[in-house]
Amino acid sequence: MEKIHGVIPPMVSPFKANGDLDTEAFVSNIKKWNEDKIAGYLVIGSNSETVYLSEEEKLELVRLTVEHAKKDRLIMVGSGLDSARETIRLTNKCASLGAQCALVLTPFYYGPQMDSKAMIRFFTEVADNSKIPVLIYNVSKFTNVNIGADAVAELSRHKNIVGMKDSNGDVPQLATFLRVADPSFQVMTGTYSAWYPALAMGTTAIISAMANCCPNEIAVTQELYEAGKIKESFELYQRMFPVNAAVTGGFGIAGLKYVCDYLGYRGASVRNPLADLNDTQKEQIRAIVDKAVKK
Amino acid sequence: MEKIHGVIPPMVSPFKANGDLDTEAFVSNIKKWNEDKIAGYLVIGSNSETVYLSEEEKLELVRLTVEHAKKDRLIMVGSGLDSARETIRLTNKCASLGAQCALVLTPFYYGPQMDSKAMIRFFTEVADNSKIPVLIYNVSKFTNVNIGADAVAELSRHKNIVGMKDSNGDVPQLATFLRVADPSFQVMTGTYSAWYPALAMGTTAIISAMANCCPNEIAVTQELYEAGKIKESFELYQRMFPVNAAVTGGFGIAGLKYVCDYLGYRGASVRNPLADLNDTQKEQIRAIVDKAVKK
Amino acid sequence: MEKIHGVIPPMVSPFKANGDLDTEAFVSNIKKWNEDKIAGYLVIGSNSETVYLSEEEKLELVRLTVEHAKKDRLIMVGSGLDSARETIRLTNKCASLGAQCALVLTPFYYGPQMDSKAMIRFFTEVADNSKIPVLIYNVSKFTNVNIGADAVAELSRHKNIVGMKDSNGDVPQLATFLRVADPSFQVMTGTYSAWYPALAMGTTAIISAMANCCPNEIAVTQELYEAGKIKESFELYQRMFPVNAAVTGGFGIAGLKYVCDYLGYRGASVRNPLADLNDTQKEQIRAIVDKAVKK
Amino acid sequence: MEKIHGVIPPMVSPFKANGDLDTEAFVSNIKKWNEDKIAGYLVIGSNSETVYLSEEEKLELVRLTVEHAKKDRLIMVGSGLDSARETIRLTNKCASLGAQCALVLTPFYYGPQMDSKAMIRFFTEVADNSKIPVLIYNVSKFTNVNIGADAVAELSRHKNIVGMKDSNGDVPQLATFLRVADPSFQVMTGTYSAWYPALAMGTTAIISAMANCCPNEIAVTQELYEAGKIKESFELYQRMFPVNAAVTGGFGIAGLKYVCDYLGYRGASVRNPLADLNDTQKEQIRAIVDKAVKK
Repeated sequence: MEKIHGVIPPMVSPFKANGDLDTEAFVSNIKKWNEDKIAGYLVIGSNSETVYLSEEEKLELVRLTVEHAKKDRLIMVGSGLDSARETIRLTNKCASLGAQCALVLTPFYYGPQMDSKAMIRFFTEVADNSKIPVLIYNVSKFTNVNIGADAVAELSRHKNIVGMKDSNGDVPQLATFLRVADPSFQVMTGTYSAWYPALAMGTTAIISAMANCCPNEIAVTQELYEAGKIKESFELYQRMFPVNAAVTGGFGIAGLKYVCDYLGYRGASVRNPLADLNDTQKEQIRAIVDKAVKK
Repeated sequence: MEKIHGVIPPMVSPFKANGDLDTEAFVSNIKKWNEDKIAGYLVIGSNSETVYLSEEEKLELVRLTVEHAKKDRLIMVGSGLDSARETIRLTNKCASLGAQCALVLTPFYYGPQMDSKAMIRFFTEVADNSKIPVLIYNVSKFTNVNIGADAVAELSRHKNIVGMKDSNGDVPQLATFLRVADPSFQVMTGTYSAWYPALAMGTTAIISAMANCCPNEIAVTQELYEAGKIKESFELYQRMFPVNAAVTGGFGIAGLKYVCDYLGYRGASVRNPLADLNDTQKEQIRAIVDKAVKK
Repeated sequence: MEKIHGVIPPMVSPFKANGDLDTEAFVSNIKKWNEDKIAGYLVIGSNSETVYLSEEEKLELVRLTVEHAKKDRLIMVGSGLDSARETIRLTNKCASLGAQCALVLTPFYYGPQMDSKAMIRFFTEVADNSKIPVLIYNVSKFTNVNIGADAVAELSRHKNIVGMKDSNGDVPQLATFLRVADPSFQVMTGTYSAWYPALAMGTTAIISAMANCCPNEIAVTQELYEAGKIKESFELYQRMFPVNAAVTGGFGIAGLKYVCDYLGYRGASVRNPLADLNDTQKEQIRAIVDKAVKK
Repeated sequence: MEKIHGVIPPMVSPFKANGDLDTEAFVSNIKKWNEDKIAGYLVIGSNSETVYLSEEEKLELVRLTVEHAKKDRLIMVGSGLDSARETIRLTNKCASLGAQCALVLTPFYYGPQMDSKAMIRFFTEVADNSKIPVLIYNVSKFTNVNIGADAVAELSRHKNIVGMKDSNGDVPQLATFLRVADPSFQVMTGTYSAWYPALAMGTTAIISAMANCCPNEIAVTQELYEAGKIKESFELYQRMFPVNAAVTGGFGIAGLKYVCDYLGYRGASVRNPLADLNDTQKEQIRAIVDKAVKK
């Protein structure tokens, strides 16, 4: 698999007010992203409320992504589950629908047991049996598990494990992963909060919540950096930083979905136990967005 | 639903060496527990490696439990999932197979959003739509989420939410839950490490990993306390404490399963990413068990 | 040293509005406590804002305590500092002023290095060189360090280390300390939130923030338990629990000092960086106190 | 005060085997650093085991630094204590000995109370009364307190608070501090693990443990970056990264002191509760250093 260059949105899953999946809104988003500066599509990732989807719904979203995505772009699926067996089963179902690679979450239930040996056992079995290349997905704010550099070093040498998305925003840890991993292994950042420093360290790809609603600003940060316009890149990074904070930590996925709606994509509703923003929250987040994004 | 009095094992799910479910071993355990001093059975709970089971496997274990359990005892299912929708769907499938109540895990993905409002939204929707009574399951060591006393106070007044299992071992918090909850609501402890102080606070039921391999010792701790033999109860509690530590924190579910095998139940293998104990670990845990349990 | 039976207030240090030590208020408190059901006095402990005192002020408070305390009661000093050397120096100065034993905080700066070996090194050197008996003080909410059971087991056998105060409210850990420590070693609880379960486990002494303002209620909890009135003891424990929560976690030392003022002791002001309660906070805490304490 | 450009070692305090301060070794280090590429000297900082020093020892080290340091270089003192009063007193004593600015640790005892308001109260009172400019020192791994961006934004506008050292290695947080602080306020990194990304963000100064033993490598990382040799700067950063990890997280101050000895400086012994490295640890750390540093 070729190294990824650019931005991939971890696509939100729009729900109707009654909680049903809104596939029409989902396809509408894909069509809009088809016109944006992105390198691919991540379906059923963390920002897709995947833990709230039935398996049928997951497969439907994968199918729709394959059908509607722009042809030369990568299709990645977030098919990781706590169980190696179930991850393999779901990954291969996605592969048969046309998914090109799988972003697999670190297992995290029984957290105290999820040490480097467990990570190596899990990803090795998954990668050995997956019909498509595997990437590791590390996101401690949701899993409370953090993959160790020793596990990354070993797994990066597995021929069917091609990269990782690190969403922790821990830049020194990112430097460590870059240092210990096989050169063929692609380390990506999973949060815009680390995008500028990650670019300065030579990474070339990002999969970030904010890529749902502001993909082009993220792409331009990279274009500027790579064109040697370091100062301009850093300024754009700083300008967009509060938007990223709002659609991740601050307001979570409901905030991300609202900003999608506000900027012409379709976020729609979240599923219980999450809740849509109230009017005060909407006003707060609009103020943040208005300050950063030229509409 | 009547209040529970006594011990309920959160039953392990034995796997064959090849990873397949060993239903024969599972039924063998039920038959042995039928002879033990227990009040009921919890199937597909945390100690059942439920996150590693397919839905078909979950339902098969529920069916087998209903079929083989001693007739006058409670059958509880660990049917909680992150999604309210999916939890309702699975709970009602279990109910239709004969499960009598549902122990529902607090939702925990997107942890920073899982505040008291989210808990109230989630459990209210689940309880409104569940065909059997619901109990709340709080286990921060696995979820990194801790339900607030305000949420417990409110939810304890929902007519289809009848109790909770708190596995945190945080006794002052247990006292708080007892203080704020509706008198009709049953607070149980979910760990033997809090059993003696919980008894001293007037609780009457426990669902604890160690109830798989040492149900009678846990029951006797209670018998002694309730007979006014407080000193003997505390001594037994202290004697068994290290076994509990070994089959929970120390060695996890693989340790629990090994002690099951060692004491005449059938633990068998765990599923990847967990790993069975190695010989050194087995020796260590046998030494702990031998010191505490008269074989 | 004889085992302690009863309640010891970790005495607040009253400050004037200009930040100076209010020794007159301090002595007034001692005189009032002299009439209360307490077993001794802890001066320059955590609740004394000791980290905000100069060494001169610390020694002055020790001197005043020795001078004014009721004669048959224990005088304990919180003379622990991060440095073994400095702890020895200060402890022996306090001893020369008449302090009878020293409650020594676990060292905690460079937390990641403060493992069991460091604890054993530290307390052994301190106890070897202290002219008065030493007690270990464990309070993770302030130190973010938690002494291990292995260190307690070893240190409990040192002839000049006679006990410990555990303020974590972690009752299973308290049971562990009781199980592994030498029988001559006294394990005390350091928080009212664990007092009733600690009594049920056979402990006999408490040093708790709330003992500043409500010493008699704490003493009566014990009297009731020891008289076999278990239910009444638990009811009193539950009734006072919210007051304890308010003067520790909720409002901190400023809250504790305000309740002292409210109940006839003298808390007066805190020192910067702490701040006195505002009017809204005062109203909130009075409501909590009024509900629990018959004035 | 002019902005700092370059590297400042937070100087270790060498102790003799009997625990006494080794002032001869301390002065020897200063003389060696006088020949190195550094911008100044930090005395009685975190890496100086300041919490293990008496006040007399602290002042002696300040005096010796003023006496022996190269004349055109900055002299900074780590004079922060939990108490605003005591911090002011010590800071002004240091100022009278010739210290030019004070790096003041965030107060951290009573951690749950140490919110942004407390930080603003504390640093405002300290800065209002300090005879020399104040810098904020944020180091959560030791304090378990993390200063908020709102507090930094406000404090950065105080005319006697000129900058901060952030030792958390949290690069997105560093970006936030840079974004919200007054332009006159200097944000520095306090750990080499964030040095390269910090340079890429436009910062110009570092105060880092490793500057004790490898000041020139840190200075060259900066020279390379500022000369546009970005790739070479990043390579050097990656090469030295494991040494930094070893002398901070891995082996702590005892490791740092051993590497000082190994590379021609004088680390000597640590004070109890810390312990000097054993032979196995020395071998491990020498292997790490040998791989990174051309001797």
